[in-house]
Amino acid sequence: MAGNSFGTLFRFTTWGESHGPAIGVVVDGVPPRLPLVESDIQHWLDRRKPGQSRFTTQRREPDQVKILSGVFQGKTTGTPIQLMIDNVDAREKDYEETKDRFRPGHADYTYWAKYGIRDHRGGGRASARETASRVAAGAVARKILGPSVSIRGAVIQIGPKKIDRARWDWAAVEDNPFWCPDRQAAQAWEGYLDEVRRHGSSAGAVIEVVASGVPVGLGEPVYDKLDGDLARALMTINAAKAVEIGAGLAAAALSGEENADEMRMKDGRITFLSNNAGGILGGISTGQDIVVRFAVKPTSSILTPRRTVDIHGRNAEISTKGRHDPCVGIRATPVGEAMVAVVLADHLLRHQAIAEARNQKPEARA
Amino acid sequence: MAGNSFGTLFRFTTWGESHGPAIGVVVDGVPPRLPLVESDIQHWLDRRKPGQSRFTTQRREPDQVKILSGVFQGKTTGTPIQLMIDNVDAREKDYEETKDRFRPGHADYTYWAKYGIRDHRGGGRASARETASRVAAGAVARKILGPSVSIRGAVIQIGPKKIDRARWDWAAVEDNPFWCPDRQAAQAWEGYLDEVRRHGSSAGAVIEVVASGVPVGLGEPVYDKLDGDLARALMTINAAKAVEIGAGLAAAALSGEENADEMRMKDGRITFLSNNAGGILGGISTGQDIVVRFAVKPTSSILTPRRTVDIHGRNAEISTKGRHDPCVGIRATPVGEAMVAVVLADHLLRHQAIAEARNQKPEARA
Amino acid sequence: MAGNSFGTLFRFTTWGESHGPAIGVVVDGVPPRLPLVESDIQHWLDRRKPGQSRFTTQRREPDQVKILSGVFQGKTTGTPIQLMIDNVDAREKDYEETKDRFRPGHADYTYWAKYGIRDHRGGGRASARETASRVAAGAVARKILGPSVSIRGAVIQIGPKKIDRARWDWAAVEDNPFWCPDRQAAQAWEGYLDEVRRHGSSAGAVIEVVASGVPVGLGEPVYDKLDGDLARALMTINAAKAVEIGAGLAAAALSGEENADEMRMKDGRITFLSNNAGGILGGISTGQDIVVRFAVKPTSSILTPRRTVDIHGRNAEISTKGRHDPCVGIRATPVGEAMVAVVLADHLLRHQAIAEARNQKPEARA
Amino acid sequence: MAGNSFGTLFRFTTWGESHGPAIGVVVDGVPPRLPLVESDIQHWLDRRKPGQSRFTTQRREPDQVKILSGVFQGKTTGTPIQLMIDNVDAREKDYEETKDRFRPGHADYTYWAKYGIRDHRGGGRASARETASRVAAGAVARKILGPSVSIRGAVIQIGPKKIDRARWDWAAVEDNPFWCPDRQAAQAWEGYLDEVRRHGSSAGAVIEVVASGVPVGLGEPVYDKLDGDLARALMTINAAKAVEIGAGLAAAALSGEENADEMRMKDGRITFLSNNAGGILGGISTGQDIVVRFAVKPTSSILTPRRTVDIHGRNAEISTKGRHDPCVGIRATPVGEAMVAVVLADHLLRHQAIAEARNQKPEARA
Repeated sequence: MAGNSFGTLFRFTTWGESHGPAIGVVVDGVPPRLPLVESDIQHWLDRRKPGQSRFTTQRREPDQVKILSGVFQGKTTGTPIQLMIDNVDAREKDYEETKDRFRPGHADYTYWAKYGIRDHRGGGRASARETASRVAAGAVARKILGPSVSIRGAVIQIGPKKIDRARWDWAAVEDNPFWCPDRQAAQAWEGYLDEVRRHGSSAGAVIEVVASGVPVGLGEPVYDKLDGDLARALMTINAAKAVEIGAGLAAAALSGEENADEMRMKDGRITFLSNNAGGILGGISTGQDIVVRFAVKPTSSILTPRRTVDIHGRNAEISTKGRHDPCVGIRATPVGEAMVAVVLADHLLRHQAIAEARNQKPEARA
Repeated sequence: MAGNSFGTLFRFTTWGESHGPAIGVVVDGVPPRLPLVESDIQHWLDRRKPGQSRFTTQRREPDQVKILSGVFQGKTTGTPIQLMIDNVDAREKDYEETKDRFRPGHADYTYWAKYGIRDHRGGGRASARETASRVAAGAVARKILGPSVSIRGAVIQIGPKKIDRARWDWAAVEDNPFWCPDRQAAQAWEGYLDEVRRHGSSAGAVIEVVASGVPVGLGEPVYDKLDGDLARALMTINAAKAVEIGAGLAAAALSGEENADEMRMKDGRITFLSNNAGGILGGISTGQDIVVRFAVKPTSSILTPRRTVDIHGRNAEISTKGRHDPCVGIRATPVGEAMVAVVLADHLLRHQAIAEARNQKPEARA
Repeated sequence: MAGNSFGTLFRFTTWGESHGPAIGVVVDGVPPRLPLVESDIQHWLDRRKPGQSRFTTQRREPDQVKILSGVFQGKTTGTPIQLMIDNVDAREKDYEETKDRFRPGHADYTYWAKYGIRDHRGGGRASARETASRVAAGAVARKILGPSVSIRGAVIQIGPKKIDRARWDWAAVEDNPFWCPDRQAAQAWEGYLDEVRRHGSSAGAVIEVVASGVPVGLGEPVYDKLDGDLARALMTINAAKAVEIGAGLAAAALSGEENADEMRMKDGRITFLSNNAGGILGGISTGQDIVVRFAVKPTSSILTPRRTVDIHGRNAEISTKGRHDPCVGIRATPVGEAMVAVVLADHLLRHQAIAEARNQKPEARA
Repeated sequence: MAGNSFGTLFRFTTWGESHGPAIGVVVDGVPPRLPLVESDIQHWLDRRKPGQSRFTTQRREPDQVKILSGVFQGKTTGTPIQLMIDNVDAREKDYEETKDRFRPGHADYTYWAKYGIRDHRGGGRASARETASRVAAGAVARKILGPSVSIRGAVIQIGPKKIDRARWDWAAVEDNPFWCPDRQAAQAWEGYLDEVRRHGSSAGAVIEVVASGVPVGLGEPVYDKLDGDLARALMTINAAKAVEIGAGLAAAALSGEENADEMRMKDGRITFLSNNAGGILGGISTGQDIVVRFAVKPTSSILTPRRTVDIHGRNAEISTKGRHDPCVGIRATPVGEAMVAVVLADHLLRHQAIAEARNQKPEARA
């Protein structure tokens, strides 16, 4: 219960269902006097917005955000910021026919089993529509982090098709509808996903998020480690099934010699010669790029009938018509960026709470 | 700050350094009247204890637990349970020589950078010794879950060498020093790890934990999803770099048709025909086995000298002698089990808080 | 930071400023399947609403609540409930003249000092307008507590004028504009407060809240004691300066013999012969009436000029015109009830989490 | 459940029963590099220690504290600090005779009713012995606050006998066994309490705590207000029944003109001409002295037999022999100081998290 909040000092709570009147998020713990206007948030929401290519759902939601509190004359005041997004293209009827049957691989059954009641309209609270609120919170988090921290996401695999990392080009990410950093892979995905759509099927994906400019020292061992919080943050994104930091699963196959990121002094600063750690050691940021990946499964909203049961305990079949993303991983990219941003903002504030003690002479407290 | 606690209703806080006088954990939120004696906890601590084979550190720690509070006449009272383990084989001197140099791939540097001070003796707070406290907390969690829930771990990969899942035999897990469910793989690992030890090197590993008998309905969407909490729990284990649930990373390559775990009624109960979900949908347990995996990197405590820097900002080299695990993944297995247990116990209590409302007729609250 | 939430399992977060577009509250952790419609909440909001007599502010706010999420077909779903109230009678200009000066006894100065920025319009976030959100959350809490728990408040002192407890009549509370249980005192207050209004002055008050039908066993010692949480809940109400439980301050003057509430069996149940404890012992409810009181100071919004300083560090004078309550204690009564309700609902859920363990035979967990 | 922790960033968890092997506290979130040795803590524990005059319990507990973690070479490391105090004068047998009967006015009954099990030895977890752990945590909190903040407590009423505030002398507080700031009152209390002791009775008390040197800006509105947290902190002290801030209950009888603390510039700084607010406005510290009071009831451990019931549901009588404080308020004084210290330390850290944002130019985040 009470599971709809995230963060400790920078803390947000999302609310709203896919086909209710609105969704939103209240963002608490934002430092005062940060410049913030609606377009700062809209910029990021527009990247997640549905209907921008034939590879995402055709639901038409402008996702227009309104700031209802916490900002005065264009600056944050330190009080909670309510961000609201109206649902304008809800279609309750699309879900009438299947409301008593559980989609395999979807939260339909578990919500029913846990709560004994379920808003069946488009997944209700379990819909990926909730992630718009995350992106809004992430936009505020970016303001806290400031311009020296950049957080960028890219899709590195769709279905079984991976990018070639040697061709990684951040500029390419903005050029194709897949946030793909490898232009050749993007072309291959286009054909592949057209095929998936034609069959009413769906595909999974792997997303990588890189945060640059993160100061050394963020993270609170041992249970509020930065990587622990990132893992939770990403695993709560709809359809996520795996999270990796740095070398990730591949680290298991490295030798101790290979894995250890060696250090050298360079221009008076500590530098690392590799980044298997993904920018985190002992749960604390090293100052290197933070590199995380998460895998999302293919959505269970597909045309091919699947065997299931209904709420009356009878065997049944189900196929999903409606409007759906053939690959939810694409729109998950700005969501992943947002979740990395909120974790970093929270830990930046947590670290600032002790930064003074860190720097002062112990004698001052004698 | 204040990052050493885990859980919401079942909540524990660990304390202690590798070479201080003792380590321990205070476990709060334990329901009253559960039978609990020291041997209940010792049973699980003994599985993590060092020095049980040549493949783990030769530090001699009996890891004898003492219950200092919260239990009266063999039963829990609902008050906090302090569990303490004395450190008896601390060797401060082993670390004197390298105290000013940072081991690459270890928390040495980040603790120094964050706090400006560091207990260098064996990693201090960042040592895997802290995980004994997790195992102790996990033993209490198992009491809450009761005998109908079983939580078992197994090592499924050491270095690059994976098991053959077709040979999986839970009985084998207790037969070899690696918690390996594949007897043939265990033999191969023996030779492989002897080689690793001979070179003073280290190896990574992948551990799988399976929880059976978990009731449907545990987990609190959307930020306290069961899989989110498991991901955090496992990623905070020392050296962890990746976490998977169910099909995990491989889910990205499945089609929507393959991935959806179909359902049928069987003997009046809902059953699933597959378990790609790993027992969790929408952040809520399905009643199937919960299947999680985590990968640990090879430890950075190796004999081969590595390039590093020291606290004075000078280039240096370091090699680690001392007593260390060639593969920390082996002893991470009971730790992984414990972390799954604490997450499940916490969510069981959280779910019980609303279970009555779930079952009663709405009319009763009219 | 992140200080706008209350509760652990039943947890709500309020947002909004006095003269912004709206205020509201997101209520998380509500058990599923409770009947809930807007009129359930409106009923309680109407009791706090301004402008109902000449003794409260003349600002005209209908305080019409909208349920934006968490309710489906008239029942709660277990997901967060967003309750929003539009501000319709905001008058920004009323505050233009005094925006650079701090009202003595008000939060003007401390917000400025803490945040370096301030929404000066009617107190912004520090306005008692925020308490409408508390009342809305309290209405949901009452649904969780069910009809067997009743929570009633009464004003027992205005300015220096106390009621005669011998004349206490709950029916009287609904008969006068002061929530006064003593009809004679109510008459006296009428004349007294007219005088206060005539002088543009203000008066303090003491409010008593009584919760009946509370089950024994609510409260989590030692830092989440029921009385500790009630004290915090009431002290956070605007203008509160004191909180008492049971005999309260007077308990200090009793002897041990007088203070001890003796017990007898009656009809097979434990009964108490007095209630100095106010229904709480050791932080846990006894099953008796829970009796709490809180004192509110007179508001600092008065006509008589007071010496102050301005944001430029210059001496100044200030008097407050605008629309204000001559005695904020009156409208604080439904707020006090709401805060007692939210504390009890949270602790009821917390207790339910262990209730099963409490009742079962220890052998079942052996 | 999980109710034994206090604080957000500076967060401690206490454990242990009155007649178990030990009690203690783990203090998490302490900034690094603060000088800390056992004698820093012992100094404050000695003030609470029993048996220092004939007016406190004759139990002989040296209350010797041991630091088990979190401190390295005399300085804090930022990791959790475990402080342990052995129980050396436990006398289980003293409680054998009355173990099945509930002391009226004590937690005996409610623990039994809530948990279905009870450590009856000296109150178990509900014993005031737990407050030693609070004092230990408070000693660490004082280190965080530094020497510029002073926190002093005084007893201002015992039984019905109040001090004369005109005779307040902080120096007197250290001269008598009552922490009484009025030397004449101290003499009167001596005779009064001797009488109370002679009759095996007990007396209540009122304690005032004053914190000086607290910076302006501490406190997080609206639910984590500084006064809300202080109220909770003090109300959780054993036997507390009321909490006041500044003018407290008396504020209800003041006029708006009297209550408003006027402000003037003095030597370039804002000063207040009075302190009815007790140093807190809108939940945020003003920079003035923070003044809080709490009332404790007389203990229920008295010689005169009282009517009660037993665990078998039978009427009974009980009188308490054992060793007890005739006035628990005396030893509650250092406990009250400690609780004020922990609240302030937590809020100091919380404020530091945004202090940078507070001071920097908004343009820097554009």
